[in-house]
Amino acid sequence: MPRIPKERLARYANLQREFKEDRWINVNPIQRGGVLTAEARAALAEFGDGYSTCDRCPPKEPRLDAIERPPIAQFMQDLAEFLNMDVVRVVTRCREAQFIAFATLGEPGDYVVVDSLAHYSTYVAAELARMKVKEVPHSGPPEFRMDLNAYADKIKEVRRETGKPPAVAVLTHVDYFYGNVNDVATVGKICREYGVPFMLNAAYSAGVMPVDGKKLGADILVSSGHKSWAASAPTGILALKEEFAEKVLARSKIVGDWSNREFKLKEYALLGCTVMGAPLISLMASFSHVIERIERWDEEVKNARYLVEQLERIEGTRQLGVKPKQHTLIHIESEGLYKASQVHKRRGFFLYDGLKHRGIVGVQPGLTKHFKLNPYGLSKGKVDRVAKAFLDIAREQGLAVS
Amino acid sequence: MPRIPKERLARYANLQREFKEDRWINVNPIQRGGVLTAEARAALAEFGDGYSTCDRCPPKEPRLDAIERPPIAQFMQDLAEFLNMDVVRVVTRCREAQFIAFATLGEPGDYVVVDSLAHYSTYVAAELARMKVKEVPHSGPPEFRMDLNAYADKIKEVRRETGKPPAVAVLTHVDYFYGNVNDVATVGKICREYGVPFMLNAAYSAGVMPVDGKKLGADILVSSGHKSWAASAPTGILALKEEFAEKVLARSKIVGDWSNREFKLKEYALLGCTVMGAPLISLMASFSHVIERIERWDEEVKNARYLVEQLERIEGTRQLGVKPKQHTLIHIESEGLYKASQVHKRRGFFLYDGLKHRGIVGVQPGLTKHFKLNPYGLSKGKVDRVAKAFLDIAREQGLAVS
Repeated sequence: MPRIPKERLARYANLQREFKEDRWINVNPIQRGGVLTAEARAALAEFGDGYSTCDRCPPKEPRLDAIERPPIAQFMQDLAEFLNMDVVRVVTRCREAQFIAFATLGEPGDYVVVDSLAHYSTYVAAELARMKVKEVPHSGPPEFRMDLNAYADKIKEVRRETGKPPAVAVLTHVDYFYGNVNDVATVGKICREYGVPFMLNAAYSAGVMPVDGKKLGADILVSSGHKSWAASAPTGILALKEEFAEKVLARSKIVGDWSNREFKLKEYALLGCTVMGAPLISLMASFSHVIERIERWDEEVKNARYLVEQLERIEGTRQLGVKPKQHTLIHIESEGLYKASQVHKRRGFFLYDGLKHRGIVGVQPGLTKHFKLNPYGLSKGKVDRVAKAFLDIAREQGLAVS
Repeated sequence: MPRIPKERLARYANLQREFKEDRWINVNPIQRGGVLTAEARAALAEFGDGYSTCDRCPPKEPRLDAIERPPIAQFMQDLAEFLNMDVVRVVTRCREAQFIAFATLGEPGDYVVVDSLAHYSTYVAAELARMKVKEVPHSGPPEFRMDLNAYADKIKEVRRETGKPPAVAVLTHVDYFYGNVNDVATVGKICREYGVPFMLNAAYSAGVMPVDGKKLGADILVSSGHKSWAASAPTGILALKEEFAEKVLARSKIVGDWSNREFKLKEYALLGCTVMGAPLISLMASFSHVIERIERWDEEVKNARYLVEQLERIEGTRQLGVKPKQHTLIHIESEGLYKASQVHKRRGFFLYDGLKHRGIVGVQPGLTKHFKLNPYGLSKGKVDRVAKAFLDIAREQGLAVS
């Protein structure tokens, strides 16, 4: 056996997170919706041990979603109800939920229609399912508005090209570049008309803002616990309308050729059980909080708009994407900050440095011309501090602030 | 939006685990190796927030395994070295690691050769990859010894049937029914001879006992963090020899047909990043402890043998699988306890009740004729208490104890 020197192992002792929520203002665009509640923190400690959820796995139906103590089975139902869908499974990641839908609703070689601002994981999930993508175009700068009516054209294009409809059409509710909120119902209607299963990627919406699956016309709704449900990673949500559950959650049919072993209870595309531990319990523990917080979505958007308004006071700075903001994920383009970076000895890093110096992290180091940030869940006071920090940094660099 | 009544939400408040490690002796066969260390518990609290590992995601290589603060990139290397493999990725579950290997090394319709005591997830992973299984037979009761030389026959059988070798051959190092330890090198040699990629499922071995990947001839080694590495669920280990890394960790090649977007850094079969949070950090925090504990494997096996010896004192009771035990997972067959269950008002539940009454849990409720247990990591004193509990229960039922 090889031996790892003790000195090297020292680096795994006392692992500390540098930017903890209680000491920093973190505006990282992917992190705001995943900050744990106190309840989730307590639940993590309680169910930290591997397979801690399985103490009372029902012998007659040994499957994660059937466990009633802790109330996992109940949670799947309540979560489905909350999203106004019929059946829910918690899987390891939103991307896995997407892959499961692709792999079970289509065949290798099939097409998936996607919005062209979809998360990379949508493309890669299609690739793993051995499928091709057909993209719905957007309007380009400055709004990057998705051409939702083009879903009909793309579905027809796939039919012309392959003789059959796409396996699935996917719309990203809120895209990760600009935080644009799409009018989902328009696409839901088109998909229903053409008989194409419609998957809504609600990774940036469900859990922070109200999302009503059936009202939006979603057949499959996927989301991310660690992105938007105040849960630990990795957790994904796969929510289905009843008529899709049979196919997406199909039971295993494989039979051992010598032993005749079968696994008829297992949902094969989930590989059986999924998140059999702490992150699932953190999602459950935060559920009540999430239900409450989506009611405050308007205030969150108001904070985001205020932050945009303040940042746009900096010379040569504008928000990209649809205006005014309807979501808290903000994409800023700043010719001003970029100009300053050209003559700064730290180049583009001056912005990161200046923010960090003021207790603010989460803007990607080195960026000035285009960067993203997200004030979701921050108090008005903290949003003010973020705004002020940007304005101070701009002034320090001699930029005009209106 | 539907509203969940507050009364129903109350069930997610203050989620408590009934059978916590500090209050119970838990002999659940899947749980012993996944009990957290104190270090892992602390790390969980520290990195509980969703995406907490991503604070310093390197902008030029934005991928989980490239993060150096916390030392994730370093850990992947150290873990590879510890297993004597070349490249490691931490994925969401051992079953996902298996699926990734199947999906990237084979094509739909291909065969996977598996041992007939493989975990259900091996079969289901093959099914999700749209593959078929060809099983290597075992000897049946009482030893259930795998016929390892039959790997050669099965590979030849696949070649005859399909004109090409199987995509992968899988051996489960330690099976989950009887805890038999297979002679891996025998299969490694056969696979090398026939040019078939050899995957070792070390879910019940690596992390609790010494496992040297290259010495055993493994091309791919998979394991389970929450099963055997004192880590939270879900965590899986995918370890590869260099020559398989290119294929198994192949980068994404999909291109958006309208946008030309590409994702060339992403490992497509992993769907990009995997465990971007607490469970990965718990695995890292327990690593030093795991390295130490595998040195004490002989003592653990000794405890298991002692427990078997004690249980076999009960009338009509014997251990199934190879004797003497070489692993701590024990399968007991007890005609005596079964006989008692036939006349007990609680039927087979008397055993579960009797154990629970004595502070012991983890034997499946209702079982008496065949049941599994695992004393791994329990002190000698606790193993004694478990043994004594069984003997007392047997005596209470009027069974002879020799």
